[in-house]
Amino acid sequence: MKAHLTRRYRFSASHRLHNQSMSPEENLATYGKCNNPYGHGHNYIVEVTVSGHVDSSTGMVCNLVDLDGFVKEQIVDRYDHTNLNMMDEFQKLVPTTENLCVEIFDRLQKSFRPAKVERVRIEETMMNSFEYAGGRELAH
Amino acid sequence: MKAHLTRRYRFSASHRLHNQSMSPEENLATYGKCNNPYGHGHNYIVEVTVSGHVDSSTGMVCNLVDLDGFVKEQIVDRYDHTNLNMMDEFQKLVPTTENLCVEIFDRLQKSFRPAKVERVRIEETMMNSFEYAGGRELAH
Amino acid sequence: MKAHLTRRYRFSASHRLHNQSMSPEENLATYGKCNNPYGHGHNYIVEVTVSGHVDSSTGMVCNLVDLDGFVKEQIVDRYDHTNLNMMDEFQKLVPTTENLCVEIFDRLQKSFRPAKVERVRIEETMMNSFEYAGGRELAH
Amino acid sequence: MKAHLTRRYRFSASHRLHNQSMSPEENLATYGKCNNPYGHGHNYIVEVTVSGHVDSSTGMVCNLVDLDGFVKEQIVDRYDHTNLNMMDEFQKLVPTTENLCVEIFDRLQKSFRPAKVERVRIEETMMNSFEYAGGRELAH
Amino acid sequence: MKAHLTRRYRFSASHRLHNQSMSPEENLATYGKCNNPYGHGHNYIVEVTVSGHVDSSTGMVCNLVDLDGFVKEQIVDRYDHTNLNMMDEFQKLVPTTENLCVEIFDRLQKSFRPAKVERVRIEETMMNSFEYAGGRELAH
Amino acid sequence: MKAHLTRRYRFSASHRLHNQSMSPEENLATYGKCNNPYGHGHNYIVEVTVSGHVDSSTGMVCNLVDLDGFVKEQIVDRYDHTNLNMMDEFQKLVPTTENLCVEIFDRLQKSFRPAKVERVRIEETMMNSFEYAGGRELAH
Repeated sequence: MKAHLTRRYRFSASHRLHNQSMSPEENLATYGKCNNPYGHGHNYIVEVTVSGHVDSSTGMVCNLVDLDGFVKEQIVDRYDHTNLNMMDEFQKLVPTTENLCVEIFDRLQKSFRPAKVERVRIEETMMNSFEYAGGRELAH
Repeated sequence: MKAHLTRRYRFSASHRLHNQSMSPEENLATYGKCNNPYGHGHNYIVEVTVSGHVDSSTGMVCNLVDLDGFVKEQIVDRYDHTNLNMMDEFQKLVPTTENLCVEIFDRLQKSFRPAKVERVRIEETMMNSFEYAGGRELAH
Repeated sequence: MKAHLTRRYRFSASHRLHNQSMSPEENLATYGKCNNPYGHGHNYIVEVTVSGHVDSSTGMVCNLVDLDGFVKEQIVDRYDHTNLNMMDEFQKLVPTTENLCVEIFDRLQKSFRPAKVERVRIEETMMNSFEYAGGRELAH
Repeated sequence: MKAHLTRRYRFSASHRLHNQSMSPEENLATYGKCNNPYGHGHNYIVEVTVSGHVDSSTGMVCNLVDLDGFVKEQIVDRYDHTNLNMMDEFQKLVPTTENLCVEIFDRLQKSFRPAKVERVRIEETMMNSFEYAGGRELAH
Repeated sequence: MKAHLTRRYRFSASHRLHNQSMSPEENLATYGKCNNPYGHGHNYIVEVTVSGHVDSSTGMVCNLVDLDGFVKEQIVDRYDHTNLNMMDEFQKLVPTTENLCVEIFDRLQKSFRPAKVERVRIEETMMNSFEYAGGRELAH
Repeated sequence: MKAHLTRRYRFSASHRLHNQSMSPEENLATYGKCNNPYGHGHNYIVEVTVSGHVDSSTGMVCNLVDLDGFVKEQIVDRYDHTNLNMMDEFQKLVPTTENLCVEIFDRLQKSFRPAKVERVRIEETMMNSFEYAGGRELAH
C-alpha cells in the first residue's frame, strides 16, 4: 500500500530574470518585463510530494511534523521575504521558477530521509506552475 | 482515445488518531494534538479519478450520473457527519487520511464497473492531501 | 484615511449540535445529521477584520505581528484540534458556528487594543459562512 | 533536468449535449438536463502542460510568451464567448468536455513547437475535470 | 446578537446579451462578444446572505435546511442547465448578471420567511461578481 | 435598483517596507523581515467595486470594457512587474498594502467616470487583505 502525501507551503520573494552572459537586448527579448532592473515578486506556493508505504502501526506515510520541520528550516525560512537573486544558488543560475523547483527538489531529496521525495511543484501565480521530479521521467 | 475524468465530493467528519496497541506516551509522541481524546474534525474533499476510452457515440468516459450515484451511496452518505473512529473499518485501523484513502479506493475499485478507478485523492485541509492508486506504482 | 485589514486563520475542530434542554426528537428535527451523537468536524477558516487610521509613519492600520500573536494565543491555540463541545463556553451554548462567531468576536473585542475589531467571519465549509459584528448593525 | 510547466487559461462558452444519430429518448436518457434544447454554459478552465529540458542559459522550459500567444490564438480566441455546437469540429462530435479536451490537445500537439505538449486538463465546473494526454497512457 | 449567514449555490446556464429595441450595431457596440447570436455560458455561483438574531435555543440564525430547500426549488432548479434568454423574466429584460441578481433577490425577499434576505451576490466568472441588496443602500 | 459590480485584477510586484525617517533599529522592530534590504514580493489581487443604477436599457451598472481599460492603463500597467519602492508615489510613503490601497482608490475615484468607485480591496497574500473606501466610513 504505497501512497503519496502532498503538503503545501508558502513564501513571498522577489526576483529579476537576467542572465549576465547575455546582452541587455537579449535579456529584454528573452525575459520581457521580468527583466525590469529593480525586480518584481510573487507569493510562491510550494507543493512537496513524498511517497512511502502506509505504516501498518501509525497509518501514516510520514509524520507531517518531520516534513514540516524539515521544509520550514531548509526551504521556507531560506527563501521567505528574500530577493532570490541574492542567494548563493542564484549567483550563476537565473532564478526562474524552473530553477527554483530543481533547487528545492535537490535540497529535499539530498537530505530528507523519512519518505521518498517524489516531486516539487511551485505555483508562481494562480495561472502558472512548474514541476520537477529529479532525473526520472515526470509522467502524467 | 483514453481520457481521465476527475470528480470532487465533499463530506465533514471527525476523527481521533490513536492506536490502541501503543502506550499513551507513544500515541502522543506519534500523533501530537491529533491524539486529543475528544477528537477534532475536517471538511474532507475526495477526488475520484476514473479512466476509459471516450465513447464515440456519447462522447463520454463514463456517465457522471452513474459515478455520482455510486459515490454518494457508498462514500459520501457513509462518512458525512460521522465520527470516523466509530466505523467498522476503523476499529482496527487508525483513521488517518492515508487509511481513509485506501479504504475509499478499495470500495470503489471493488464494485464500480462503468470505468476504471485510477486514483483517490483526499484533501484533509487546504494545505495537505493524500493519494492512493491501488497496487500500482503511483507515478507523477 | 481609515482602512480595514482582514486576516485569515485556520483551525480544525469537531462539534455536535445538541441542546440538552430539548428532547431527542426535537434535537433531531432541529439539527438533523449534525445531531449525530459522536460528532463530526470541520476545517474552520476565521477571518478577523480590524480597522483604524493608516499610521502616517508606519503606513499600517495595525502591526500584523500583534494581531497574529493575539489571535494565535486566544483563538487558534484554544480551538485547534479540539472538540468544541468540551469547551467551557459551550457547556450551556450549542456550538453552532453562529455562537462560535459571537464568542470569538467578544474575546477579540474585549482585549485586543491595537485596532478596532470590526467583524469576525467564519467559513464552516466552502459553501457556508457566518459573520458577527457585535451590537452594531452589520451592513452590506 | 526535465521539468513541466502548466499554464491555466479561461474561456466561457455554451453547449448542448445531443447526438443526432440517437432518438430524443436516448438523448435524454444519456445526457439528462445537459440535453436541454436551448443549451447551457460553463466557465471552462484549460490547463496546458508542456515539458522540456530546463535551458541552461534562460532557465526556462519554454517561453511563456510563446505558449500564451499560441494558446490565445488557437484556443481561447476560437472558443471564448461561443456556442460549441456551432464549431466545425463539433458538427459530428458531441461537444462533451472529453471531446473538447481531445480537440484542444490535438491542435496544440500538431503545431506547437517550442516544447512537448504533455497533457490538456479542462475544469468544466469546480467539481469536475477531464484530462487527455494523446495516445500515451495517462499515468497518475 | 444579530448575525449574518451566507450560503453559496451553483448553477450552469447560457445567455446572450442583446436588447431587441437596439440596432444590431448598437448591440454589438454595447455587448461586444457577449452579443454573439448563439450565446455563451457560465458557471454561476450565487451567494445568498440572510440575517437575524441568533436564536438562544437553537444557536442558529436560520435553519440551513429551510434556506437550502427554498433556494433549490426557487432558484437552482429554475436556472440550472438552462438558457436564460428563454425564461419569462428575461423576455423584456436583458439577462445580464446585474438583472439576474435583482431577479433572484426579489424572488427570495418576496417569499422567504425564516430570516431577512440581506443581499444576493453572483460570481459570473472568478474575476467578476455583482451584488444587489434591494432598495437599501448597499454599504461596504 | 442600485447594484455593485466587483472586478478582480492581478499584478506581481516587489517592495521593501522601510521608513527613511526611522532608525535601522526602529525599521527592523516595525517591519521585521519585511524590512529586508533587498525586498521581497507578492502576487497582488486588486478588487475594484463600483456602483450605480442598473441601466434599464443595457442591464448594466457599467460597461466592463470601460472599467477594464481604465484599470489596465492606470493601475495594472503601472504596477505590474515593478518594484513599488521605485514609484513616485512611494518616495515619501512606505509602500505598505494599506498605502497602495489608498493610492489606487484615489486614482480611480479622481478620474473614472462611468460609475461610482465604492471600494478598493487588495489581497497581499491568500491570508491577508486590505480595504479602503475613501473618506467614508467603511461599514461591514
